[in-house]
Amino acid sequence: MSNLDSESRFQRRQTRLYEILTTQGFDSLALNAGPSITYLTGLHFHLSERPVVALFRPGFPPAIVLPELEAGKVEGIQFPLLPYTYGEDPQTWEAAFKEAVTAIHIEDHTIGVEIRRMRMLEHRFLGSAAPHARFSPAEGVLAELRMVKDEVEIQEMRKAVEIAQLALEDTLQGIKPGISEKQIAAELTIQLLRHGSAPEFPFAPIVAAGQNSANPHATPTNRKLSVGDLLIIDWGASYDGYFSDLTRTFAIGSKPDAELVEAASLVEKANQAALQRAAPGIPAGEVDRAARDLIENAGFGQYFIHRTGHGLGMESHEEPYIRAGSDLRLASGMVFTIEPGIYIPSRGGVRIEDNVVVTASGSESMSDLPRQLIILD
Amino acid sequence: MSNLDSESRFQRRQTRLYEILTTQGFDSLALNAGPSITYLTGLHFHLSERPVVALFRPGFPPAIVLPELEAGKVEGIQFPLLPYTYGEDPQTWEAAFKEAVTAIHIEDHTIGVEIRRMRMLEHRFLGSAAPHARFSPAEGVLAELRMVKDEVEIQEMRKAVEIAQLALEDTLQGIKPGISEKQIAAELTIQLLRHGSAPEFPFAPIVAAGQNSANPHATPTNRKLSVGDLLIIDWGASYDGYFSDLTRTFAIGSKPDAELVEAASLVEKANQAALQRAAPGIPAGEVDRAARDLIENAGFGQYFIHRTGHGLGMESHEEPYIRAGSDLRLASGMVFTIEPGIYIPSRGGVRIEDNVVVTASGSESMSDLPRQLIILD
Repeated sequence: MSNLDSESRFQRRQTRLYEILTTQGFDSLALNAGPSITYLTGLHFHLSERPVVALFRPGFPPAIVLPELEAGKVEGIQFPLLPYTYGEDPQTWEAAFKEAVTAIHIEDHTIGVEIRRMRMLEHRFLGSAAPHARFSPAEGVLAELRMVKDEVEIQEMRKAVEIAQLALEDTLQGIKPGISEKQIAAELTIQLLRHGSAPEFPFAPIVAAGQNSANPHATPTNRKLSVGDLLIIDWGASYDGYFSDLTRTFAIGSKPDAELVEAASLVEKANQAALQRAAPGIPAGEVDRAARDLIENAGFGQYFIHRTGHGLGMESHEEPYIRAGSDLRLASGMVFTIEPGIYIPSRGGVRIEDNVVVTASGSESMSDLPRQLIILD
Repeated sequence: MSNLDSESRFQRRQTRLYEILTTQGFDSLALNAGPSITYLTGLHFHLSERPVVALFRPGFPPAIVLPELEAGKVEGIQFPLLPYTYGEDPQTWEAAFKEAVTAIHIEDHTIGVEIRRMRMLEHRFLGSAAPHARFSPAEGVLAELRMVKDEVEIQEMRKAVEIAQLALEDTLQGIKPGISEKQIAAELTIQLLRHGSAPEFPFAPIVAAGQNSANPHATPTNRKLSVGDLLIIDWGASYDGYFSDLTRTFAIGSKPDAELVEAASLVEKANQAALQRAAPGIPAGEVDRAARDLIENAGFGQYFIHRTGHGLGMESHEEPYIRAGSDLRLASGMVFTIEPGIYIPSRGGVRIEDNVVVTASGSESMSDLPRQLIILD
């Protein structure tokens, strides 16, 4: 993509932002370091002890407060942008915020903020620079802006899925009884990098064996695989700022007992039922329902202890959330996980997670690794 | 370490916290997911769209608000802890906060918060659960608690330094003209994992060549190394929750011109001058001064555009910050970076970063890779 194309892309996104902001009743928007700034400007900033805040007001160029140290990042940017830098002495930071707020006159605005991103640090600087402003949650603005992915974004995510799948295939070869969860996680991470993932992973792989697999958010331990274990691997890659997030479950050395085999078969069916339900116009809650009904009707409902999925893109968890009762209607271009699971305390768990894109008429899984319970030995 | 030892360790830390809280005028403390919770309880939570907040009040057991999904993490914990869980429906989250706040009666407290960690999300839940409370920055409490490392922590950090050094040595073998910054960053990341780093890196490696090296916070690009480039590599490992953070600068293929050679020599001397100045009782600002004087006196002062260093531990940037004017007095057991740099716009940069621990009588660099400008070809 040429520079000119990318610039128009960011300016088009800013224009759409301004429409949504206005429709949702905001005067302006304040974003701190993170994916929404990147989406709107192409600039990358990490959250650190030095605040970075970008201010967006319809009809004005965006204004950005940033450390002098990072000023190089905004040089050469091709759309209008007002940078306000500060030095190493925190006493001087407030002045930069004041300048930025004053430059685009948002002192008394209703300013949208991402309350799941904005820290009290930035909120306090903004509040003292704009004491008459009202700060209101704008998660809905950013969701509407970013939830439907364009073709370029979907291509990035397909690539992130492909990298993740190749990395797992290469990792599986070394998995056998006696290997620890941590060793598998380290090897999988290496394979992700070898296959082209950026080092900014969506999350560190979850590798959970035996009774650890009954904990959906387990951290890899030194526990070694034994024959009869279930093994959950939940991992993802990062490509050009976009993430994948997959899960597969394996059996170690032998077929597990009948209850766990039934659980694995149910989760596979629930995964497919949710995929088949997902289509433009369908409420997210109905996709959750499709997976949950299947598991509940088989008497395993008490063991499916989380939502069916979450949106995916520049964040590993974003809108749309696929949870019970959500009436958010799916639309073509939305991307999310479908990841039903059954977790039987002190015995083991099964989860099968795919990355799904809503198409014009239904939905498609971007991931296609086998879903049935494979025995590794 | 046996379970019993680790438990007493966390309870000792909680007791120290309560002393510091009281001395600094706070009634209680609210922490969200992050290293301070881990330091005080041994529990690991990642920041996500589901808030996790731990509340500490002297004389009461800590109370923690967390998703049901993560409830397994607090099972089996050996010190008193009051867990309040919530389900997938965000409508129900407020009630869990209310229960926790009520259980330890902090409704009208002066509650300390880490404003660089706490998001508006958690602040709003806390504010509505405790509408008469005052929330005040408590960065100073946590700094006093965590800044001086104990022997076990220093051992973890020595290990993180060792892993980082071995990883760089193995990466250097493949560095030559024609290799891109991104390729070097990927290989270095792989080597970090091979040598035992946890996948939760302190940060993704910075690899910046040629004029990119003049930007202290560069992101690796597809730019390929050419003869005559300076190459800055800034990388770190993670071991048992503790980080290292090192930088070395290399010349590619041939000796660079005289000005850059002088810059490299000055930065090396500045690094050593700061190390020699660091000792118990010395203000952090004097360590910065020692490095800065050397560079300023040689006429390169305008190119040293950042502080000399930052504290290091469970965070990649923490107290004590080694910056101009800081009167924070160093003490035995503090760990920080010393990383002077010279950045000549559109030509190139040099930075040499070590990880230093203050000893009883002076200071010691935990890192010992050669500091002089080595030519790679």
